Amino acid sequence: MERLKYRDILYDDRQIGLWPTDKLKRVPKPTNDIVGTIERRDERESPFGKSLFGEYGEEIQREFMRMTRRYPLGASFWDMTDIVNNAILRKRNPVAPERAPIPEDPRVLSRHIKMLGHFLGADLVGIGPLSQSAVYSHNMKGRELEAPFKYAIVLLARKYEPTWNAANGWEEIVDPASFQAYQRLLMQTETMANYMRRLGFEAEASNMNRYLTLMPQVVLDAGLGEVSRMGIILNPFLGANFKAACVLTNMELEVDGYIDFGLQDYCSKCTVCAQQCPSGAIPRGPKTLYNGYYTWKLDSKTCSDFDVLNKEGCVCGRCTKVCPWHVPFAEPRDFDAWDGSNEWLHKYVDAQKARLVAENYVHPTEATDKWWFQLDEQDGKLVFYDERNEQKVCKEYPLQR
Amino acid sequence: MERLKYRDILYDDRQIGLWPTDKLKRVPKPTNDIVGTIERRDERESPFGKSLFGEYGEEIQREFMRMTRRYPLGASFWDMTDIVNNAILRKRNPVAPERAPIPEDPRVLSRHIKMLGHFLGADLVGIGPLSQSAVYSHNMKGRELEAPFKYAIVLLARKYEPTWNAANGWEEIVDPASFQAYQRLLMQTETMANYMRRLGFEAEASNMNRYLTLMPQVVLDAGLGEVSRMGIILNPFLGANFKAACVLTNMELEVDGYIDFGLQDYCSKCTVCAQQCPSGAIPRGPKTLYNGYYTWKLDSKTCSDFDVLNKEGCVCGRCTKVCPWHVPFAEPRDFDAWDGSNEWLHKYVDAQKARLVAENYVHPTEATDKWWFQLDEQDGKLVFYDERNEQKVCKEYPLQR
Repeated sequence: MERLKYRDILYDDRQIGLWPTDKLKRVPKPTNDIVGTIERRDERESPFGKSLFGEYGEEIQREFMRMTRRYPLGASFWDMTDIVNNAILRKRNPVAPERAPIPEDPRVLSRHIKMLGHFLGADLVGIGPLSQSAVYSHNMKGRELEAPFKYAIVLLARKYEPTWNAANGWEEIVDPASFQAYQRLLMQTETMANYMRRLGFEAEASNMNRYLTLMPQVVLDAGLGEVSRMGIILNPFLGANFKAACVLTNMELEVDGYIDFGLQDYCSKCTVCAQQCPSGAIPRGPKTLYNGYYTWKLDSKTCSDFDVLNKEGCVCGRCTKVCPWHVPFAEPRDFDAWDGSNEWLHKYVDAQKARLVAENYVHPTEATDKWWFQLDEQDGKLVFYDERNEQKVCKEYPLQR
Repeated sequence: MERLKYRDILYDDRQIGLWPTDKLKRVPKPTNDIVGTIERRDERESPFGKSLFGEYGEEIQREFMRMTRRYPLGASFWDMTDIVNNAILRKRNPVAPERAPIPEDPRVLSRHIKMLGHFLGADLVGIGPLSQSAVYSHNMKGRELEAPFKYAIVLLARKYEPTWNAANGWEEIVDPASFQAYQRLLMQTETMANYMRRLGFEAEASNMNRYLTLMPQVVLDAGLGEVSRMGIILNPFLGANFKAACVLTNMELEVDGYIDFGLQDYCSKCTVCAQQCPSGAIPRGPKTLYNGYYTWKLDSKTCSDFDVLNKEGCVCGRCTKVCPWHVPFAEPRDFDAWDGSNEWLHKYVDAQKARLVAENYVHPTEATDKWWFQLDEQDGKLVFYDERNEQKVCKEYPLQR
């Protein structure tokens, strides 16, 4: 069998991955205005940090500590993430002293790394400059962080759609749905970083349980979305229904550039997420100035408190579920007819919104596909959620809430 | 928001997952005849075991030891699998002393576990009885194995199609493509087993680096395929382009039953895999009797030797790539029109075969999507594959093989 020529293959710059990322409009700066200096953040000062350290009171501290682990599937994901992370940190492979004999062209290397990201299982991959303002000044343990890297390779993992659609957005399965994405990203970014170090390049993964970076800015800088009303980054193909992790490196790469798919305009008119938020944490008005940039500023304590104290499930992601940009079961080929214009996209999302409104934001599979059990841990025992104070094992599972 | 009734939801028995598994014809026994007693196997007696222990000579022993690790991406997957497995074994959660208050109906539990498998990321999930003949008598380390469990919950992970299609079947990326699937299965089965133990049920994962079970029989018994000419199990939707792992348990479950999609007849007439096998290890004739059952018996030493000594890449999976049941980019909705008959399926596969023959078994993306580098480790350094004896770092990557 004849061997194929590699030059054309390595330089091929058609779309990478399944989504039409090559049709996106690239722009020189983020679509939300940055007017000042963005200060580095201390992870302990985040709402989850303040919950952990008791600044929001004892009840929130206690409930935060068991937030993921009180639901058995969340606890399993927690165990796995914790075990894997600790083991990887103990046995980190060194950077090979000599560079592998591979091309040095950033274009070839960028394509290689992106193809690798998809091969590892990422739903989308982007490359951006690493802004030092995106690096936490300190982590939850109070350790001072440094990340002397030029680029961030950002991987997105879509939450499992069939289950996500079947949940109301704050049920027991919502937190495990995030962890399922975190788990994939953990393995993908660690494998990628291990591989890059083997090729002779410094590379460090930033992922669940030990994020070095505040992900929204990193995702924005990698051209994977725009700031949305929810306060988080929204991707035109996945909506906000994803988690992100990254590999930081000094390998010379090409950055993708910022994208503009008209979201600032869309979100300024659409307030679905704000209306549907069970805690009222999302603003209904215009963007405001925060830490040097304009954004729809989430009331993050209100949001976090609802997550932590939620008695009808675990955590909450109602905003990302009802957002009309979260197109249920959308597949790459749904975008085959896309001409690259914002008009086409916005019309598509408007049609989705009309469907959501007609269904009162209840996906049809909510009536058939809720497969998880309502359980809660109390004093080391699993109890049926609504009866947890009686702590009895039900011989017959209560079949209606 | 009104709470939904759970009875109908928990008992809903429509298709689980994306593939039309509910249209498959179920039969009381495997479609390949079993005429005697199937003996348990010792993993050390497998071709890879014999390679490892030097029974096939020094060169094969030496090359086997570095088979996966001589290619840097394979080495990264190896590291991760090894690190994770060791860490999980050291920190295994116990079986909860009390059962969780969940329904005991095997039908409800089977649906729950299958939905969970898909949620965790499996491409297909099946439940079968655990035959003791499928449990290795001893593992590679010589440890005697016991698996006192009634059922095997089997998860299939499809290899990443876009890369698999772009490879000829024995290039450098072929081994990492298997490990990418193994890595997902490792996390999925360990998370599932951890969760089931939390619910109070014994559960043990059998996956990469520490398989307790010989997977072909387990996959067959879970109704996930039939014996193929390649000697391995073929699934009607994924072809043989998958890896498998399982969770063993005594939780009372419903088994799926064997399936019959006419593969014994199809493979008896089709010899594509045998003709295309680079080592000639696949028989072109009829099935023969082996260890108590009829099968197309692979010359497994010849196959294994080719894997181990392959100088044009890592390992080999040419048979699964060229098999017309491996339908490139086939998606669940391609089967929307399927009436459940073997005729429809075979016609579909025949059309695929005609396309493959017309393309001389070279997928169009082989000309554009080979993104991996040709590297090999020699004395601790990565060298360009074809020049590995010179051990020089090429400033310019040789752009043609």
